[in-house]
Amino acid sequence: MKIKLTITYDGTNYCGWQVQNNGITVQQVITEAINKLTGESVKLTGSGRTDAGVHAEGQVASFSVQTESIPPLNYAKALNTLLPEDVKIISSQKVSEDFDARYSAKRKTYEYRLYESSVILPLKERYAVRAEEGLNLERLQTALNEFVGEKDFKSFCASKSGAKTTVRTIYRAKVKKENGFIVIEFCGNGFLYNMVRILCGTALGYAQGKITLEEIRKMFLEDNRSLGGKTLLAKGLTLKSVEY
Amino acid sequence: MKIKLTITYDGTNYCGWQVQNNGITVQQVITEAINKLTGESVKLTGSGRTDAGVHAEGQVASFSVQTESIPPLNYAKALNTLLPEDVKIISSQKVSEDFDARYSAKRKTYEYRLYESSVILPLKERYAVRAEEGLNLERLQTALNEFVGEKDFKSFCASKSGAKTTVRTIYRAKVKKENGFIVIEFCGNGFLYNMVRILCGTALGYAQGKITLEEIRKMFLEDNRSLGGKTLLAKGLTLKSVEY
Repeated sequence: MKIKLTITYDGTNYCGWQVQNNGITVQQVITEAINKLTGESVKLTGSGRTDAGVHAEGQVASFSVQTESIPPLNYAKALNTLLPEDVKIISSQKVSEDFDARYSAKRKTYEYRLYESSVILPLKERYAVRAEEGLNLERLQTALNEFVGEKDFKSFCASKSGAKTTVRTIYRAKVKKENGFIVIEFCGNGFLYNMVRILCGTALGYAQGKITLEEIRKMFLEDNRSLGGKTLLAKGLTLKSVEY
Repeated sequence: MKIKLTITYDGTNYCGWQVQNNGITVQQVITEAINKLTGESVKLTGSGRTDAGVHAEGQVASFSVQTESIPPLNYAKALNTLLPEDVKIISSQKVSEDFDARYSAKRKTYEYRLYESSVILPLKERYAVRAEEGLNLERLQTALNEFVGEKDFKSFCASKSGAKTTVRTIYRAKVKKENGFIVIEFCGNGFLYNMVRILCGTALGYAQGKITLEEIRKMFLEDNRSLGGKTLLAKGLTLKSVEY
């Protein structure tokens, strides 16, 4: 039986999604909870990695189990009793055997949050990154428009990205004001390692007059990460949802 | 010279505002920063205590200094370099010698945040408290209306409240939906120890059908904390502002 989980986590204390040797990961704590619950040794497949410190409202993962004794809808509640407070399963359901959380994913939506202030605001710092006041949102949007479409994002990913192709399609890249935050939303068919954070840093660089549109366009023609903006901090990024 | 500070903090890691022996407090870290900056030993007066774990967007405090060498407006920036990431000064200004952050305070506004979910949502847990779905906001407001006016709140405070009088005036007690949270706002001339958290717990008890309006009214006539609701968790509470 194949089970799909929808997962939310505060990534602050995790070394990202994917199991690794350097520290505790979200994939690891959920896999351990499933193994404990079922008495089996499962392989948990996520829709994709999230970097260390990145949060999720709707990460998706799937796994196969032998046992039929646990009703699919009950996995969420049962796993939540075994999981730490910063990782929780929103829902669980049975899916067809050919479902794969990674390869079946069609669209992902990420949000990056900034707040404008001349002072660090502790109550906004956990899930957002500070920018100096007076950010030009129209310029931010102008830069974001450059990212929409099917493009080669080779200049917009970290070098340790081991992807076969660096071509991705971004369907939507929009900035909005929401409840005291500036929220940049990306919806695409997939994202490379650090890509959203580099795109946001580059758009911010343009908004602040540090990068030109010509330089951004040049990044799509050449393999030249150095023309782009900073890789913004992980804590401002949240994986909102994955569509199948 | 007397200086007024407007302060924001994430109270998660503090034993409240007031200096005590059991652990680190916000008053303590700010006092130490001022002493380090000025080379003097100041007495920092807050508008009032906040309990352990309670947050602030606009706490106010004042202190007197001998030195004239630091421009009043510069205290904020200078202190922020000495303060931890979870306590920051929003602004500093010179005030008249008779200003007292505690006794000159006219109105305080607090917000208590809830979110409705059958599952713990890690990204909402830090600054809000979970309630089961289907909360009746009209009933919540009906209970809150009982708290408005000049009343004796002796049944709505923790026993270790050492206040001379337990009469307080609440000007406003309103519930609203905001960005996925249920926010209860209180504005009053002052609040007793644990009072906002007990009022919220009592209003929630009424909304959930566990407490009657008659019991709430009886609490104002008798000294009877036991008829009220739970003292809700500190993490949902934020001191928004203090008016002078």
